[in-house]
Amino acid sequence: MAFRFKKSSYIALVASGLLLVNGCANTVTNSDSAPLLIAEQGSFAVGGSVIKNPGEFDPIALTSEGQTLHGDHAYVFFQRPVNERTYPLVMWHGFGQFSKTWESTPDGREGYQTLFLRKGYGVYLIDQPRRGNAAKGTQTGDYKATPDEQRWFNTFREGNWPDYSPNVQFPTDEASLDQYFRQMVPDTGPIDINVNADAVEALFRKIGNGILVTHSHSGGMGWQAAMQSPNIKAIVSYEPGSNFVFPEGEAPEPKHSSSGPLSAVAVPLEDFKKLTRIPIVIYYGDNIPETLSEFPGQDGWRVRLEMANEWADTVNRHGGDATVVHLPDKGIYGNTHFPFSDLNNKEIATLMADWVHEKGLD
Amino acid sequence: MAFRFKKSSYIALVASGLLLVNGCANTVTNSDSAPLLIAEQGSFAVGGSVIKNPGEFDPIALTSEGQTLHGDHAYVFFQRPVNERTYPLVMWHGFGQFSKTWESTPDGREGYQTLFLRKGYGVYLIDQPRRGNAAKGTQTGDYKATPDEQRWFNTFREGNWPDYSPNVQFPTDEASLDQYFRQMVPDTGPIDINVNADAVEALFRKIGNGILVTHSHSGGMGWQAAMQSPNIKAIVSYEPGSNFVFPEGEAPEPKHSSSGPLSAVAVPLEDFKKLTRIPIVIYYGDNIPETLSEFPGQDGWRVRLEMANEWADTVNRHGGDATVVHLPDKGIYGNTHFPFSDLNNKEIATLMADWVHEKGLD
Repeated sequence: MAFRFKKSSYIALVASGLLLVNGCANTVTNSDSAPLLIAEQGSFAVGGSVIKNPGEFDPIALTSEGQTLHGDHAYVFFQRPVNERTYPLVMWHGFGQFSKTWESTPDGREGYQTLFLRKGYGVYLIDQPRRGNAAKGTQTGDYKATPDEQRWFNTFREGNWPDYSPNVQFPTDEASLDQYFRQMVPDTGPIDINVNADAVEALFRKIGNGILVTHSHSGGMGWQAAMQSPNIKAIVSYEPGSNFVFPEGEAPEPKHSSSGPLSAVAVPLEDFKKLTRIPIVIYYGDNIPETLSEFPGQDGWRVRLEMANEWADTVNRHGGDATVVHLPDKGIYGNTHFPFSDLNNKEIATLMADWVHEKGLD
Repeated sequence: MAFRFKKSSYIALVASGLLLVNGCANTVTNSDSAPLLIAEQGSFAVGGSVIKNPGEFDPIALTSEGQTLHGDHAYVFFQRPVNERTYPLVMWHGFGQFSKTWESTPDGREGYQTLFLRKGYGVYLIDQPRRGNAAKGTQTGDYKATPDEQRWFNTFREGNWPDYSPNVQFPTDEASLDQYFRQMVPDTGPIDINVNADAVEALFRKIGNGILVTHSHSGGMGWQAAMQSPNIKAIVSYEPGSNFVFPEGEAPEPKHSSSGPLSAVAVPLEDFKKLTRIPIVIYYGDNIPETLSEFPGQDGWRVRLEMANEWADTVNRHGGDATVVHLPDKGIYGNTHFPFSDLNNKEIATLMADWVHEKGLD
């Protein structure tokens, strides 16, 4: 809530608008604090299925006979800036999260949604089926209000509760942590990878070609979506956590950490090869144990990073273009499981934008 | 997805920007298809509470001992246009709905979120506690995937399933109805009017003075929020459905329809009087039965409209300024329970904007 627009800035905007007529198209939206120029925004449901009760609807008794339920769709909120770049970005949250992942950061700064609008990208934010604004599923579910936030504090690598990692790129005030804990939502039904990948495939069918940006649990589901959808032209994956797919016969043995085994998933070579036809980049943050740690929340990331490296090697051995970036190896320290909303998220966004540019996709 | 921005329009925008320097501040955002100029946008959680399990957190076993749960907050997505008007609009959905109520219409046109940004208002969209993006509650809940959409079709006055009302202001193609059914979400815990009103009060405390826009079930909760929050400077209520508050001793008898009794709620006069200090307008759409109907979905609105009229009379008798507009009496026909997203929603929005202007609140 920091920025209040002033008349003087408005005139400056119009002045910079004049510059636009003369050349550079992205002047207005690229600036850190200039107004966003949105050509179109809105929301819709996509994918999903319909169930119908037998019998005939009774408009007086209003019992459930003959009635329908539309569910298992994804919900999507989109914004398209003026002078939109070639491919929009479709951003898919991780486990227990929803579109908030990409919106304002816990301390109220701009997240990827707005940062990438400023960079000229169309941005589509997903709530996956049976979650958040797409909570209407076709399966019954229940929600146990079980306190579990200290577990997530550790698993998302803010630190080891109640201590933050000394170099953490997370605001350590109480209000930010309060916001962070409130950005999770329960599932309203079983998580079904096929239902989720199908909805994302339907989204790309609707909007056409684009770049899929995944986080954590959606990383693995994103590989599946990309094997299904020819419209996914690249993947940027932040800290993918599970469901690494390998060609049958090439899957490594399960990897063991104090959080339990991490298994690879075998798929037909023909499907796997689809992942070799698009550029893929994977980012992991800091404070991942290098050797077995007794703390399962943190230790799981050690084997996920290891699996990601083997996975990228396998993709590349089959002619693909997959890169794993462990941010500390680039001299970028302190990132949590949410690099895109960490204190240095503008730097992280620039890294991503540079990669997209290198691949000729912007 | 209808509008695609073209370079020629962009230059036209800049040209109209030039006009701005010379005078009228709202030229750019007022236009139907010109880009939106957003000074700031983002999201946050507000209100809510924290529960904590006894014991000490164990970072190895990760059991629930000593862990916390932050829940019962509202989730808010906001956008503030350049040259924002005095009071922002806080829009609160109805029963079974979430922020989608105010976003794109079922047939993909602009809803109140974007229409009022174009009119220069800051717009804050609420997901109430235990719903949608605010689904993380402190109470356990369950979701039964029960087909019930034909019931809502009737209750929301699209018509009498499967027939649309002949004059209905709702798109009658299948794709729009599919989107409409998918804009509902289940609750993840009990609906608690106090929890909800508290969260909305907290929102107004955070953002300061504003105008509350309610729909259906949030109508009654809105009266309560306004009795709690001195920052609510006006209320626009679409088809409020329940919880009409009257001073103790002045509450009417329950009103009977084929959907059951509708009871008034008695509150201390001192609280009620707070509703006499702000202007309030209530809108109801068309196709509300004038006499007892055997169809409970539709008939409920007959007594709600009657109750609303008595309620406004009571507010005004105590010195307030409440108006009930039955749209057909203004020559506006065919509106459903969702006038703000109906086919004529621009006309409905203009009515509201004119009212806000008449009250000197813009």
